[in-house]
Amino acid sequence: MHILITGAAGMLGRKVAARLVRDGLAGREVSGLTLVDVIVPEPPSGFPGRVDCLAVDLSADGIAQRLIDGRPDVIFHLAAIVSGEAEAEFEKGYSINLDSTRDLFEAIRRAHLADGYRPRLVFASSIAVMGAPLPYPIPDTFHTTPLTSYGTQKAICELLLADYSRHGFFDGIGIRLPTICIRPGTPNKAASGFFSNILREPLVGKPAILPVPDSIRHWHTSPRSAVGFMIHAATMDLGAVGPQRNLSMPGLSATVGEQIEALRRVAGESAVALIRREPDATITRMCESWAPGFEATRARALGFTAEDSFDQIIRAHIEDELDGQR
Amino acid sequence: MHILITGAAGMLGRKVAARLVRDGLAGREVSGLTLVDVIVPEPPSGFPGRVDCLAVDLSADGIAQRLIDGRPDVIFHLAAIVSGEAEAEFEKGYSINLDSTRDLFEAIRRAHLADGYRPRLVFASSIAVMGAPLPYPIPDTFHTTPLTSYGTQKAICELLLADYSRHGFFDGIGIRLPTICIRPGTPNKAASGFFSNILREPLVGKPAILPVPDSIRHWHTSPRSAVGFMIHAATMDLGAVGPQRNLSMPGLSATVGEQIEALRRVAGESAVALIRREPDATITRMCESWAPGFEATRARALGFTAEDSFDQIIRAHIEDELDGQR
Repeated sequence: MHILITGAAGMLGRKVAARLVRDGLAGREVSGLTLVDVIVPEPPSGFPGRVDCLAVDLSADGIAQRLIDGRPDVIFHLAAIVSGEAEAEFEKGYSINLDSTRDLFEAIRRAHLADGYRPRLVFASSIAVMGAPLPYPIPDTFHTTPLTSYGTQKAICELLLADYSRHGFFDGIGIRLPTICIRPGTPNKAASGFFSNILREPLVGKPAILPVPDSIRHWHTSPRSAVGFMIHAATMDLGAVGPQRNLSMPGLSATVGEQIEALRRVAGESAVALIRREPDATITRMCESWAPGFEATRARALGFTAEDSFDQIIRAHIEDELDGQR
Repeated sequence: MHILITGAAGMLGRKVAARLVRDGLAGREVSGLTLVDVIVPEPPSGFPGRVDCLAVDLSADGIAQRLIDGRPDVIFHLAAIVSGEAEAEFEKGYSINLDSTRDLFEAIRRAHLADGYRPRLVFASSIAVMGAPLPYPIPDTFHTTPLTSYGTQKAICELLLADYSRHGFFDGIGIRLPTICIRPGTPNKAASGFFSNILREPLVGKPAILPVPDSIRHWHTSPRSAVGFMIHAATMDLGAVGPQRNLSMPGLSATVGEQIEALRRVAGESAVALIRREPDATITRMCESWAPGFEATRARALGFTAEDSFDQIIRAHIEDELDGQR
């Protein structure tokens, strides 16, 4: 089984590759991995099969065709530039997040017409396809009215994915990821970074800044669950999904206050004391327009699962990123 | 005031041009009209200003740029290939219905960046952006999960329109048109054609075939109201609309049986007797997946209006297409 991952140098791409190497896919061994990103992805450790790690610009002519020439059985299309960059650089955002995806879909369609090729394609979408005003919880049938170019590009790719799947060119499924929390690594400048920072940093004895009130409610899942969504999407029976191929994933709706209470339970008062409140009106306003939580009824019925509490999310982080120690 | 209409040779384009010539736009005189389509549009009669009638392929390189070089104040973008053709000819559908629209939007964006140009752009979308299963009535916040490539292309253009408007490149508004009834002209092969045929033909003493049961419910508006939507969209204050720029228009939800009862009231038993029932399972199945009706709360609040009864729709047809005679 040959698997292609775009965006393979990113956090999710690396974790999906590692999981495939560890577990295979649906009981089948992974014999080949093609990992692509704008920088050379690292090959996952302990993989005995063939691995091609490529640094390519997915938006360049002929690249999608070249990737599909290898006829991967499963494609995880995770590559994207992030929200802030897509908003600031309009043309680059559309080129990478929309045109590259369409190039990939078109290369698959041409291969399908040539020889009946029909891979499983798992697309990483985002709750950014939703835009305020948003109800809580957001039903599966709620409209996509994004308020960013990034969200617009993801919503367009969702529509293309459903149409190409309906025509039988590939077997696609779009996964609307919640905000990933706790994001490993170091604090970054994303406006949403604090959701992870206020847990990850205190867990290793470092301070973290909280720019919003405790009452802010948002929609989270762990990196571990996000990888689980991807693997399940790659292996599930899509016959049960029908033509509506884009699914809001399950997750955990929690306020910042509830995050902090979970930190207190798992890591104690000393960890909580490392959170410094520095209210930021701009970030608070942005957060108030983000998705507070989803029903995710269809995805749950289709077997997607996520954490029930922030205690679990914190413990998953300790196990997966801190070797179980703190 | 200079106005550009794409798809100007179509039924709606011709009627919009005629209305502009008759009434101007928001009290301003129309001094120039650019009418484009794949065939040369006819100039509206009685127009003293400058009119350019062009037969162009909107998807050809440089065409959008050329149209925008004239800096039209208002653009009615109505051009599209129809649902059946877009479904059968995948590449052509995406080229005309998506890429041509994006070319037009991009030409406007470049002009905006060059000199601050920012026209009003009215886009003809469709209830085909919705896909079964559909509730009745469909709320304004219902998701767009089209089941045709045509609907997919319209839904994508809606997303682009909202994003380009949000960035300030133009002042766009997308109008989700109900099925137009009574469509003037001769019976065509569109699966939805019977909704008009069973009224238009008996009104002039001709027979018509009804392929579905009387219980089929659908969403209609007259050509007159559709023109009214376009004119209102071109002149209304968009400040009240906010970032959600695509609106499901008001219309009339009616069963086929209710259509026939209205025909009986307006034109008598002899007209109704000209309807011949020839049930067609395929057409019936298609109809059952179409939109039965919308709440259209936002559009009504923003001043869009449509008929309250099929009697009104039939009378509008008699006035507008049959010189008030029958």
